[in-house]
Amino acid sequence: MIHFADRLINRISELNNPTVVGLDPRLAQIPDFIKEKAVDEFGETKEAAAAAILEFNMGIIDAVSDIVPAVKPQIAFYEYYGHEGLKAYEDTVSYAHEKGMLVIGDAKRNDIGSTATAYAAAHIGTIDLFGEEVPGINADALTVTPYLGTDGIVPFTKVCQEQGKGIFVLVRTSNPSADEIQGQALGDHLMDEHVATLVEGWGRDLIGDSGFSSVGAVIGATYPEEARVLRNLMPNQIFLVPGYGAQGGGAEDVKPCFHNNGTGAIVNSSRGIIFAYEKQGKPGEAYAEAAREAAENMKKDLGNLF
Amino acid sequence: MIHFADRLINRISELNNPTVVGLDPRLAQIPDFIKEKAVDEFGETKEAAAAAILEFNMGIIDAVSDIVPAVKPQIAFYEYYGHEGLKAYEDTVSYAHEKGMLVIGDAKRNDIGSTATAYAAAHIGTIDLFGEEVPGINADALTVTPYLGTDGIVPFTKVCQEQGKGIFVLVRTSNPSADEIQGQALGDHLMDEHVATLVEGWGRDLIGDSGFSSVGAVIGATYPEEARVLRNLMPNQIFLVPGYGAQGGGAEDVKPCFHNNGTGAIVNSSRGIIFAYEKQGKPGEAYAEAAREAAENMKKDLGNLF
Repeated sequence: MIHFADRLINRISELNNPTVVGLDPRLAQIPDFIKEKAVDEFGETKEAAAAAILEFNMGIIDAVSDIVPAVKPQIAFYEYYGHEGLKAYEDTVSYAHEKGMLVIGDAKRNDIGSTATAYAAAHIGTIDLFGEEVPGINADALTVTPYLGTDGIVPFTKVCQEQGKGIFVLVRTSNPSADEIQGQALGDHLMDEHVATLVEGWGRDLIGDSGFSSVGAVIGATYPEEARVLRNLMPNQIFLVPGYGAQGGGAEDVKPCFHNNGTGAIVNSSRGIIFAYEKQGKPGEAYAEAAREAAENMKKDLGNLF
Repeated sequence: MIHFADRLINRISELNNPTVVGLDPRLAQIPDFIKEKAVDEFGETKEAAAAAILEFNMGIIDAVSDIVPAVKPQIAFYEYYGHEGLKAYEDTVSYAHEKGMLVIGDAKRNDIGSTATAYAAAHIGTIDLFGEEVPGINADALTVTPYLGTDGIVPFTKVCQEQGKGIFVLVRTSNPSADEIQGQALGDHLMDEHVATLVEGWGRDLIGDSGFSSVGAVIGATYPEEARVLRNLMPNQIFLVPGYGAQGGGAEDVKPCFHNNGTGAIVNSSRGIIFAYEKQGKPGEAYAEAAREAAENMKKDLGNLF
């Protein structure tokens, strides 16, 4: 079993590109030609919305799979259309795999005991179907929330261990109110630093040949000072970094999330890539090539850091 | 628009029963006669699993809807079967509504900005479908996780305000490792007490005629001392209390979650009710009447507290 961390680090190194494309398909921003085709087939239904999302995603994946190591579908935008939407999520994961991309499911799941075990099986493991083990959604990794402590994490790390999968634990998020809980002082250190030491412990048995653990951390790009502190507390964690582009962070802001040799982080951009055609003033039909151009620019931008 | 809190408190009062039945349908424990029927129709597929879950849930709902105010489906056990499972979740919500029960979706969702807005719309609000507003899953309330602070909560409270819905924010969970984050000391108080003051603030504009807010709190029954402190910090919050029965808490343990007049909390039991037939040594065919008996016993047990 190859560790998820090694699979991700190897692919980043092969493509020389530490980025992940966030697949957050807001229907309003999906080009009309895709929506019209779906509505022609299914009417103005959730099924049509799901079909449009899937086709849109396939175009993005086709456009970037040879230059970007991973995609990160944000499940909320699929759940939005109920079970039809979840089907589009599942099909997106499968299609990304077909095209050789790793998939980080952004679901921020959290629970305890048998409930967390069910989430782990569903998203990154195998499920028991009338006595037979079959794949679930089968993403390579999942984002999870740490508020319940170790009980909420072990069911996921067990699956990571058995199936070569990974998790990214929310440690420091990129939003303005992150400080309300994550930035609270526990004596001489902050809550997120305390969570960082927990994450370091949770990941200790999942360190691969790359030196990185399959238990990574979500670290927002909007708190560079804090990112430096967290980098030191979690030397073996891969940082999944949201907030580049649309959320205001630039390449300089994400720099502290990397080690000095340029390893150890993967930076996400969602809207900045998938809806680049709008910003570039291009027609909807050019959305995929616009996404590729934006992904190439992001690669260059990050490549200049080290 | 009637506040969710008022709808729930009124129904608890009408039935004189502050309990909620957790619908956590593990396939292995669903009676064989239900599974065989589903497999006959759909083969050993996810569709069959979902059909069995739905039929099982309908039997439970039929058996308890005139004595129990609400059900709490745990979405992990539905997501386990992918989009087919999510369809069973959606249909369970609809069926519970048909039978006059309130539905608290146990999903512990959390995210920020437009992503949290998508979750809120999907689970308790209405979604935009090609320009038309249509219902999402349409639960009455949803459990949410507070790790991201106010930014992660406001998108939900906005929907609560507009549509008479509710949320229950995780404050103190019932599991052994809850202390690792929730029990950390911030000067002279604990993290969960700090979160309690945030929750109190988030709920202030959503207080109904009952005196309770549609922003409630999840408070585990396994920390009675702490529950007392939290009760004082959140006088207007309805406490959703897991941990009764299967997780080791008894009626005396949940008592501090209530106000002295017996209001302000709703206690969950999942396995102890839905799979009571196993404990009672009854055949699978009697699962629904066993569930009703267990629900009646729980009502009596809690009724003796005040």
